[in-house]
Amino acid sequence: MRVGVFDSGAGGLTVAKSLLQTPLFDEIIYYGDTARVPYGIKDSNTIIRYGLEAIEFFNNFDIDLLITACNTVSAYALNDMREVASYPVYGVIEPGIWALEKKGINKDANILIIATRATINSKRYQIEIAKKGFKNIMALQTGMLVPIVEEGIFEGKVLEAMLEYYFKDIATPDAIILGCTHFPLIAKSIKNFFHNKPILIHSGEAIVEYLLSLGYKKLPKTPSMQIYASDNVKNLRTIAKKWLSQ
Amino acid sequence: MRVGVFDSGAGGLTVAKSLLQTPLFDEIIYYGDTARVPYGIKDSNTIIRYGLEAIEFFNNFDIDLLITACNTVSAYALNDMREVASYPVYGVIEPGIWALEKKGINKDANILIIATRATINSKRYQIEIAKKGFKNIMALQTGMLVPIVEEGIFEGKVLEAMLEYYFKDIATPDAIILGCTHFPLIAKSIKNFFHNKPILIHSGEAIVEYLLSLGYKKLPKTPSMQIYASDNVKNLRTIAKKWLSQ
Repeated sequence: MRVGVFDSGAGGLTVAKSLLQTPLFDEIIYYGDTARVPYGIKDSNTIIRYGLEAIEFFNNFDIDLLITACNTVSAYALNDMREVASYPVYGVIEPGIWALEKKGINKDANILIIATRATINSKRYQIEIAKKGFKNIMALQTGMLVPIVEEGIFEGKVLEAMLEYYFKDIATPDAIILGCTHFPLIAKSIKNFFHNKPILIHSGEAIVEYLLSLGYKKLPKTPSMQIYASDNVKNLRTIAKKWLSQ
Repeated sequence: MRVGVFDSGAGGLTVAKSLLQTPLFDEIIYYGDTARVPYGIKDSNTIIRYGLEAIEFFNNFDIDLLITACNTVSAYALNDMREVASYPVYGVIEPGIWALEKKGINKDANILIIATRATINSKRYQIEIAKKGFKNIMALQTGMLVPIVEEGIFEGKVLEAMLEYYFKDIATPDAIILGCTHFPLIAKSIKNFFHNKPILIHSGEAIVEYLLSLGYKKLPKTPSMQIYASDNVKNLRTIAKKWLSQ
C-alpha cells in the first residue's frame, strides 16, 4: 500500500518518521508545500485552497490513503479534502485526541494544547477535547517555535527564552498536545521546561497507533520514501536526512 | 502620481511608512502576498514567479511606478519584473547601497549586512557593495528575526536571546544594512546590542532619499493609502494600524 503524507513544509517529516519506525505501508510519498510554508499564520480560506491543491498533486500518484500531517490543514481543510479525494484522508487532530484518551489521562487533568495561530483559532482541538469530557483545557498559540525548529535549534538559550516567553505564567500541565508537527523535535526541551512532568502527545505516534486501532497491520519492512516539494526539493531532502536521523 | 508598494507580507509597511512621512506620491497602493509569506526561506525560481505575479496584481491599478519593498524580491526578481512591467520598478537594494555611500561611510569601515537566507544567498548586496570599493563586508542571515517582528516583539528577552545568538561572535560594525523590511522595527534593539555605535541603513528611508535624488519632488500632502493582501486583508490592515503608529 502506498500512503501520501502532506505537509505545509518540513514539519510533517516527524509524522513520516513514525511511519518509518512503525511500518504500516510499503511506500511513502511525502509532499511539502515549501513554496507557501508556513500555513499556520494564514487565513482559513487560503488553507482550504492549499489543501485542495494538495489533493490535485497526489492525483499524479496512485495513493491508497492520505495523511495530512499538518495540524493547521487538519483543523480547516479535512472535510473539503475528503469530499474531492477518491481515497481516505486522515488528519492528525482526531488521532491526537484519541491518543489522549488511550493514555488514560484523567478527565480532571490539565491539558495544554500548543499549536500555530490558525490551529488554535480553529478551536478544533479545544471543542473535540471538551466533547470527550476533559474539563481543564488551555490552548496557546506558540507559532514562533516553528521557524526556530526550521533553523535547526532544538535546545539552548534562544529556545529557552522562547519557552519562557510562552509558558512563564502557565502552571505545569498534566498533558501537552504537540499540535504542530514541528514540536516533536523540541519535545525534550518542552518537557524539561515543565520538570519532565507532562505527558506529551505526538501527532506521528498518535496517527500510527490510531491506524493500528483501525486494523492497519504492522509490516516487516521499512517503507521506501519519496520526497516532493513545491519549492526547492533539494532543501527539503537535506532537512529530511537531518531530521529523520534525530 | 500613484505608487505601488509590493511586499511578501507586512514588512514593506516600514517602506510605506517612509513614503507617508516624506510624501512623494498622491496615492499608495500596498500589496502584501500574505498567503505565501515569507519569501526569504524560498527558492529563487519561486521568488521570481511571485514577483511576476505581483506585476499581474498591479495591472488592475493604474500605477505610475512600483517599489518592491521586499529585499528578497529585490535581490532575485527585479530584472524579470522590469521586463514585463509598463512602468519603472524600483527595488530597495540599489537605494540601500546608494545610502551607504551618501552617508559618507569610509571604504575601510566594517559593513554588516543582515537579511533573510535568500537575500544573503543571492550575494546581491555583497557584490554591489564590493563594487563601490568597500573592503570589509560581512553578510549574515538572520531570518528568525522576521517572525519575531511579525509577533510584535520589538524588544525584551526573546529578542535579546536572538540577537545574542546571531551577533555574539561579531565585532561591532561601523554600519549595518537592515536588508529586510522587518528589521527597522527592531532597529533600536539592534543598535543597542552594539552599544549604539553602528550607523543603520533603512530601506524605507533609503528609497525615499534615492527617489528625491532622481528628481521626484516632496509633496505638501500625506498620500492616501490602500492596502491589499492575497490572504486575510483585515489582518494586514490591523498590523498596518499598529506599525504605522510605531
